[in-house]
Amino acid sequence: MKSYEISVIGLGLIGCSIVAGLKKNGFAHKVLGMDIDHEHEQQALKCGLIDEIVNIEQASKADIVIVATPVNVSARIVKTVLDISGGYTTVMDVGSTKKNIVESVEQHPAYRRFVPTHPMAGTEYSGPLAAKDDLFQGHTVIMLPYSDGDKDKEALVEQMYRTLGAEIVKMTPEKHDVSVAYVSHISHISSYALALTVLNKERSEENITNLAAGGFASTARLAKSSADMWVPIFTENKDAVVDVLDEYIENLILFKHAIKSSNADVVRTLITQANKVREVLDRNKK
Amino acid sequence: MKSYEISVIGLGLIGCSIVAGLKKNGFAHKVLGMDIDHEHEQQALKCGLIDEIVNIEQASKADIVIVATPVNVSARIVKTVLDISGGYTTVMDVGSTKKNIVESVEQHPAYRRFVPTHPMAGTEYSGPLAAKDDLFQGHTVIMLPYSDGDKDKEALVEQMYRTLGAEIVKMTPEKHDVSVAYVSHISHISSYALALTVLNKERSEENITNLAAGGFASTARLAKSSADMWVPIFTENKDAVVDVLDEYIENLILFKHAIKSSNADVVRTLITQANKVREVLDRNKK
Repeated sequence: MKSYEISVIGLGLIGCSIVAGLKKNGFAHKVLGMDIDHEHEQQALKCGLIDEIVNIEQASKADIVIVATPVNVSARIVKTVLDISGGYTTVMDVGSTKKNIVESVEQHPAYRRFVPTHPMAGTEYSGPLAAKDDLFQGHTVIMLPYSDGDKDKEALVEQMYRTLGAEIVKMTPEKHDVSVAYVSHISHISSYALALTVLNKERSEENITNLAAGGFASTARLAKSSADMWVPIFTENKDAVVDVLDEYIENLILFKHAIKSSNADVVRTLITQANKVREVLDRNKK
Repeated sequence: MKSYEISVIGLGLIGCSIVAGLKKNGFAHKVLGMDIDHEHEQQALKCGLIDEIVNIEQASKADIVIVATPVNVSARIVKTVLDISGGYTTVMDVGSTKKNIVESVEQHPAYRRFVPTHPMAGTEYSGPLAAKDDLFQGHTVIMLPYSDGDKDKEALVEQMYRTLGAEIVKMTPEKHDVSVAYVSHISHISSYALALTVLNKERSEENITNLAAGGFASTARLAKSSADMWVPIFTENKDAVVDVLDEYIENLILFKHAIKSSNADVVRTLITQANKVREVLDRNKK
């Protein structure tokens, strides 16, 4: 397997997990990294996730530049890297919303060298210390290449993800943003709101801890996720998020009225319909 | 350690997991079982979770009778067992709501032999095949003994749970029902409503499966839970559940308005407040 020099701009969970895997499997022979948070740079260096802390000029000289910053700044950084880097450099991002960045970068003359991606993996933790070299194993990576993009660069990114054990799905940015709002973004809002509710309602933190095994620990796990990552996602993907949030609230009101009026049959019907999620989720266990 | 003959009425996940653990550690030398679902009786017998399928008269002769049925029928069964059984028999339940059963059984002359409990453990699966002999290891069991209950029987139940690795917390039924509504019941409704929303919004099941790692798989896990168990819980604990559901809906509306008006500062504040759940949840990891 050919080995590459790779830069990571944004040393968070995703960026660091990618290079952790690529260093381990030999796809990367050298990793350069940078972050606005200098503590994260030092941590990534000390943990051997990156070999060198660089500036954006140096980062842009690598074979592959991975932009792994919050989604509200990614487009600007991708365009800067395209400005500086040469024709051999593949530039990719890993952000959770895609329409804005794909449209924005398309205005740049070198957009064909940019491969937009979204790996569907993560944990509720962030930063270099949360990196896991097997984070993408068995997970889906969505790729959203330009129809007239550079095919070799697209193939290189695809190959890179496959070495990490990921499966590739291709999608348009419009479809992607709506689908992730439905499946991923609403889950996070549901979890944040649950945490707010329980923290406010149950004043005894000890009680929460004691009772958390009754479902709360699992449902509220995502509420640990960082604001730096999620505020830009929700606001960038506003329309789809508000749309699904409306439907979610409607479903909760249905539950509330059925319980309030002790209509056990309606509660049963709602639960039985929700149970269908079992088949969909258990498909993952192939 | 002394060894006991134990009956389980209701061969679900909880009842079967308790006896699986007690057979393994020797606290139970013989287990009798019954269920209205004869397939569950056969499964429990074949898996060695119970030694004999019995009727309620036979079940009531054991040293300890564990009533592990849906909460809407438990009180009636506990009273029947108290009717039939002798003074040496300890009767206990494991239901997720406690006020109704504690008040109802208190009307029975032999109520002092009844020890109400609620083990805070479970999975989204049900029935004997879902039993796990280590289900209670490190988990909290809430005990809600009558102040004038039989202290020896209370101590026996406590000892039984401790052999399974559980930690005991004592609470009043009123406090219990409100706290579990806040922490556990709302989590299940949040998850059911999320599953309904996503199944309705995202028509492509393949997409849901592919994107589930983005948080949905974790948040919707509880939506697999059975209606037989949860319909009676929600209706029995109606007041507390509706109260917390109202607050949950309010918090979601807050999120919605903040996102809709692109008010990133409010979204950030809400997320940061929700993040406080981290400390509360991470206490479990002692």
